[in-house]
Amino acid sequence: MTHPFPDDSVGLVAPQTLVFDEPLTLACGRTLQQYELVIETYGELNANKSNAVLICHALSGHHHAAGFHSTEDRKPGWWDGYIGPGKAIDTNKFFVVSLNNLGGCNGSTGPRSINPETGKAWGADFPKLRVRDWVHSQARLAGKLGIAQWAAVVGGSLGGMQAMRWALEYPDRLRHCVVIASALKLSAQNIAFNETARQAIINDPKFHDGDYLAHDTYPKSGLAVARMIGHITYLSDHVMGEKFGRELRSGSFEQGLDDLVEFQVESYLRYQGDTFSDSFDANTYILMTRALDYFDLAREYNDDPSVAFRRAQCNFYVASFTTDWRFPVERSREIVDALISAHKNVSYTEVESPFGHDAFLLPNDHYRESFTRYMASIATE
Amino acid sequence: MTHPFPDDSVGLVAPQTLVFDEPLTLACGRTLQQYELVIETYGELNANKSNAVLICHALSGHHHAAGFHSTEDRKPGWWDGYIGPGKAIDTNKFFVVSLNNLGGCNGSTGPRSINPETGKAWGADFPKLRVRDWVHSQARLAGKLGIAQWAAVVGGSLGGMQAMRWALEYPDRLRHCVVIASALKLSAQNIAFNETARQAIINDPKFHDGDYLAHDTYPKSGLAVARMIGHITYLSDHVMGEKFGRELRSGSFEQGLDDLVEFQVESYLRYQGDTFSDSFDANTYILMTRALDYFDLAREYNDDPSVAFRRAQCNFYVASFTTDWRFPVERSREIVDALISAHKNVSYTEVESPFGHDAFLLPNDHYRESFTRYMASIATE
Repeated sequence: MTHPFPDDSVGLVAPQTLVFDEPLTLACGRTLQQYELVIETYGELNANKSNAVLICHALSGHHHAAGFHSTEDRKPGWWDGYIGPGKAIDTNKFFVVSLNNLGGCNGSTGPRSINPETGKAWGADFPKLRVRDWVHSQARLAGKLGIAQWAAVVGGSLGGMQAMRWALEYPDRLRHCVVIASALKLSAQNIAFNETARQAIINDPKFHDGDYLAHDTYPKSGLAVARMIGHITYLSDHVMGEKFGRELRSGSFEQGLDDLVEFQVESYLRYQGDTFSDSFDANTYILMTRALDYFDLAREYNDDPSVAFRRAQCNFYVASFTTDWRFPVERSREIVDALISAHKNVSYTEVESPFGHDAFLLPNDHYRESFTRYMASIATE
Repeated sequence: MTHPFPDDSVGLVAPQTLVFDEPLTLACGRTLQQYELVIETYGELNANKSNAVLICHALSGHHHAAGFHSTEDRKPGWWDGYIGPGKAIDTNKFFVVSLNNLGGCNGSTGPRSINPETGKAWGADFPKLRVRDWVHSQARLAGKLGIAQWAAVVGGSLGGMQAMRWALEYPDRLRHCVVIASALKLSAQNIAFNETARQAIINDPKFHDGDYLAHDTYPKSGLAVARMIGHITYLSDHVMGEKFGRELRSGSFEQGLDDLVEFQVESYLRYQGDTFSDSFDANTYILMTRALDYFDLAREYNDDPSVAFRRAQCNFYVASFTTDWRFPVERSREIVDALISAHKNVSYTEVESPFGHDAFLLPNDHYRESFTRYMASIATE
């Protein structure tokens, strides 16, 4: 039988669940007595344990970042284009760890998990999380895996925020920090979109103040609208125009004669909203957008990111994409400027791409070459 | 008693209702046997009836464009900054007609009106409308007022689309066409935002497929989310940052300790959504966003706007605003380019403003001067 996967794929992978029994006190003041994290790993940890790379996921993230879950599986992990043998995050060189964050809905402890104190699902009572809570839980994960120092902590978007927070919270536990399509903090417009998405969920009567599981229901409609809002902001105006133009799904333009007439972009968005809301947890969505909103790297450093970055000891790679209007290039330039002011080593690339914020997930020669070169420069001995 | 209104206000105004008994066949193929339009007028029609200006409203529009409805009224009409004695649309010179469009919810025949054939409110069964239907109904309105030719037809945003359609449908019935912050057609992103807003309404269980009136209820939550989505797109990222920054409504940043903690931009948006959804009709919102989506000036002219504009006989004034990302300056430049190709007279101004799409409603020296000069140049004898 021939190998069913492409040569540059990590191939068949399986998630594993790690149990953490030491209580974790969160930024909100509450404590999780025990929690589980679901992870996947790709490549081999070397003898020095010096080649480990942590992948931090974005808003709707998943531990399944590369490879396939079965031989029938058609869809690889979410960052398969950049993780694998010979790829930017080269699994011939690196031991890659990808997790589902705390509060997630793909197996790690989150709102769908059972609260041991009540015997019922946490639901809306799951503690509110901040980016630093994820970083602390990831540090415990590193400890459990015996990784004293990451070769690199890597993330796009919300994942980039985790990578930056790592550089400040555990400066001696990473050598490189890779921050892609991210920002020091959200703009008011970003927060406004997130808040509108949350309102769509909260206003769905099936949300039941977050206790939909106890009511044996689910706010699918609200979550679908939330996803539609998010999805528009991930794509550039240009790419939506290219992809859909103003084409109608059916042929006629005679509005009113045929109720099925609609623009292709509408059915596409509805499909995106529907499939997302089938699988994603509404409380997790609220929790993760809240963590995004509250992230503000420099807030406790006198609002001066160059003061914040002085704590960092690692080198930085920063990348942004020209048509990303959710986290525009200006936000990445702010990161780079602050790093330079703080006398840190930073490589920065501004990638020409028509694909908006989504570009960090998509094929792009310039991005791939630049990212690959940087990762190749990382010493792992 | 002193005059309670500013000197440059049109002062106390009152709406009037006009009844149209001649059937109006719509673009969708259905016919309204009878309909009413609510209008306000400011200034005096001259003896030649040559000084009349028609104001076409935008998405959430109203006939009350200038002046006050009572001496206690604190809030003037929606374009009071630009309509009044000595203002851009000078009521010492012009007779200004402002209407609530067909399908509206401020008194003109629309989804809330009684369908004479059933004796019940139209609700979701109100015919779907296109921009040209509004223009045809406005032409009948002109006829009833004895206005053979408008000195100018003026509109911003969706109103600008009506003004352009006027120039093609009734070329000899207007001398000037004023198109502010508008476009030849929506982009896929614009349509996507509108569709998401509609889904928020339609998914609200109180919408009842548009028959909420029959169920004695109202999809307030869905309409509030729809308005929040719209509102974000009316403002620039910059102005949201300036207005709200990342300021918290209450003092503490300790998320989770105080459920009232939120960003100011969130409470602002919720307030906008709440007040709008108290007064606006959900079916009207769907109908008007659909008309916006389907507007495509040049569709039946081989998709060539310069061919379309060849029909026009009037002069044009076009204005756009630098931070408007809903109808960016590029959209206005397309209008201007097509007009020039069609050998039409066009004056164009690109106004520096931080206020996004909303800028067309707000004070701005450059905009006011340019708009005023153009309107002053219009002959009315």
